[in-house]
Order: sequence, then structure tokens, then C-alpha cells
Amino acid sequence: MTDRTRLKRLPKRGVFDRAAVYDILDEGFVCHVGFAVDGQPYVIPTGYARVGDKIYLHGSAASRMVRSLADGLDVCVTVTLVDGLVLARSAFHHSMNYRSVMILGRARLVTDPAEKTEALRAFTNHIVPDRWDAVRPMTSQELLGTSVLALPVEEASAKVRSGPPGDDEADLTWPAWAGVIPLSLEPGAPVADVHVGPGIPPIDARQVVNRRRRAS
Amino acid sequence: MTDRTRLKRLPKRGVFDRAAVYDILDEGFVCHVGFAVDGQPYVIPTGYARVGDKIYLHGSAASRMVRSLADGLDVCVTVTLVDGLVLARSAFHHSMNYRSVMILGRARLVTDPAEKTEALRAFTNHIVPDRWDAVRPMTSQELLGTSVLALPVEEASAKVRSGPPGDDEADLTWPAWAGVIPLSLEPGAPVADVHVGPGIPPIDARQVVNRRRRAS
Repeated sequence: MTDRTRLKRLPKRGVFDRAAVYDILDEGFVCHVGFAVDGQPYVIPTGYARVGDKIYLHGSAASRMVRSLADGLDVCVTVTLVDGLVLARSAFHHSMNYRSVMILGRARLVTDPAEKTEALRAFTNHIVPDRWDAVRPMTSQELLGTSVLALPVEEASAKVRSGPPGDDEADLTWPAWAGVIPLSLEPGAPVADVHVGPGIPPIDARQVVNRRRRAS
Repeated sequence: MTDRTRLKRLPKRGVFDRAAVYDILDEGFVCHVGFAVDGQPYVIPTGYARVGDKIYLHGSAASRMVRSLADGLDVCVTVTLVDGLVLARSAFHHSMNYRSVMILGRARLVTDPAEKTEALRAFTNHIVPDRWDAVRPMTSQELLGTSVLALPVEEASAKVRSGPPGDDEADLTWPAWAGVIPLSLEPGAPVADVHVGPGIPPIDARQVVNRRRRAS
């Protein structure tokens, strides 16, 4: 943890231990990748997966994000899990419960085919556990057409807000409901592709989501 | 729409009309704000609200984000709504359904007290409809302690992926389930603050979330 990731505001929300950072990274699956080209920042949502002490990103070799990161630009990757709306008796104390991780650093283009395959496997299985072994194996052409980037989870910090609203003492009798409305990303009923034949067992959406969460 | 927001890859996913951008901004409530200080990008999750052709952000006057944006740094604000996991018969065609908006520009510090109040009202009511009128009025000290930034929604673009997996024709008979697991941010049972008295009516979490979504 460095000066750049040390939280300037609200240090009570700062969490620096590695296990807490990993837990958040393992529960999420969409990150926001920030990089600046000629002073103009871009923030791109994309998937990721953690393997050990790094996260992998991927994309087309032609994408601006991949080209910029492969060039060694400074990057910031942020993962945010929204846990709830915090309703206070004053507008001022309204807040959100969330867990977020910010990683600073520079990414490295993964060129070793074995590491690249391992990263794509992690990527697929992070979204749906055990999915890699259930699908048609990747072709060498697909492997070539996909760029994989590795970013070390070294300069990283987590921010967490949880619990009830922090109302001023004098407001506690104000006649408005106050508390937390929990929020979570929940699965709906799976929509099978029209070509799924009658012999294919259906997928259990709840299990997919819960197993990813439990992995964290 | 400008060259910088014109999508370099996957133009089929690009959406440029203003109504589509506004719909996504109105359904979301967490954005990721990107800015670079001395070449180092930062990506900060924070709340926002749209009023007409701009979005408002807010924070403590002492925060790095507020100071940087008030100084007129180039900024990128991205809002991402995750709609589903797209399971294909090959790892390569796995994807996500999502809707996202990217806004480039420079923010302006809001100094006019009337506009500032209006922004904070929009902010509060964006999270919970009609909340502003239900809570204890904002004090002048709270108003002073909060910085509000306005960012025009001019240089903006939306990206949308929806629908089934895009499997290769040859893979359609591969024996794995394929399709979409829809995902949405759903409310759980509200957790009342311990000081909520018996005379306060409970809040309807489902209604809070649905009313914000319908506003879009």
C-alpha cells in the first residue's frame, strides 16, 4: 500500500489487508479500467478474473484499451459492489453501502500461450464455475485473436461502507423511515438459446451466482 | 458525438442517440469517475443524478476527486448497468449483456446556492423518489460543506449488448446449455435503523427500486 492508494478522505472506510481486497475482487466480475491518452482519461467497463496476486483482463488486440495498456500506460482498475441504499433522516447523511477495490499499476501483455490459456480459463470459470471444461475447446486462432493483460494486485486498497445511517443525534426523532435497503445483483430465470436441444439439462442460475459468491 | 467517443471496436454495440444515453443514466445511480493526476489515472465510484443535459456529482470539498475536477481536469464518467451473463458453447463467445454510457468533458464547480440545492435535491430523489421532501431540510452549513460539480452530457456515447450468445454455426450442437442468465440489482428486506419509532410507516423497497427504474 502506497501514498497514492492511501485514502485521503474517510479513512474509517479504508481497508488495506490483502484478504479483503481479494474477497471483493472474487465476488465481482465487472471492473472499470481507467487510463489516459494525451491527458484524456477513459473509463471502460470490462470483465476480469483474479489468479493469485494478479488480475487478468482481455480484449481484442485492436481495442484502444488493450493497445494502451500493452504500451505500459499507468492504469487504475476499480471494482465496485453495491450493497445497499442508506436512507438517513437528512439528505446530507444519505449514503450507499458498498465494497470497492482500486488497483494502480501497469499491465503486462501475456504472450506465453500456457499463461494465456490459464488466464482465459480463469476468466470463463470466474463467470460460471466449471464452465471451461463444459464448452468447446478454444482454437489456436481464437487464442491468437484474444489479447490478455496481467495487472499485479500490489498497489491496491479497498473501501467499504456498511451498516446503518449516521444521522445526527438531533435528527433521530425526525418522522421519516431510516435504515438500509439492501441491494444485490440477482439472477432471473435463464433464457435458453433457441438452438438448445431437448437433451441438454437446464442451468441453475441461482447456483451459478451463489457459487461465484461463495468462492470469495 | 465526437471522434473520441466514436466506438473503435464493435460498432454494432454503439448507440448514440440522446434518449438512449439518458435512459441509462436515469436507471443507474453509481458512476465511475476517471481523471488523471500527473499521468496517473484514478477511477472513483460515486453517486450522480441527471438534470436535463447535465449530470451532477458531489463530494467533500477536500476530496481529491472534487479538487481535481473543480480544477478543470479532463474527466470521463462511465455508468454501467449489468443485464446478464451470456453463456455460449465456446469460451470465446461468452459475453455479458450490459448497457453503458461514457461521458467525456470537463466539470464545473457549482457555486450558485439555488443550483446547488437543486442538484442535491435531484441527487437525493434519484436514489429514493420524493425523499427530499420527507427528510429534515438541509442546513446552510451542510450546503457549504458539500461541493457539487456539473458535467454536461454532450460528448457522450452508449454501448449496449443484449440478446442471445453469438455462437459459431458449427458449435450449435455442442452439448452444453447456452443462453442468457439475466441479472438485475434487486432489493432485499429493508433493515430499519434502531431509532425508527413505532409510528413511522415502513418503506417499500420494491417500490423504491421500481420507481427509479420507471423514471428512465
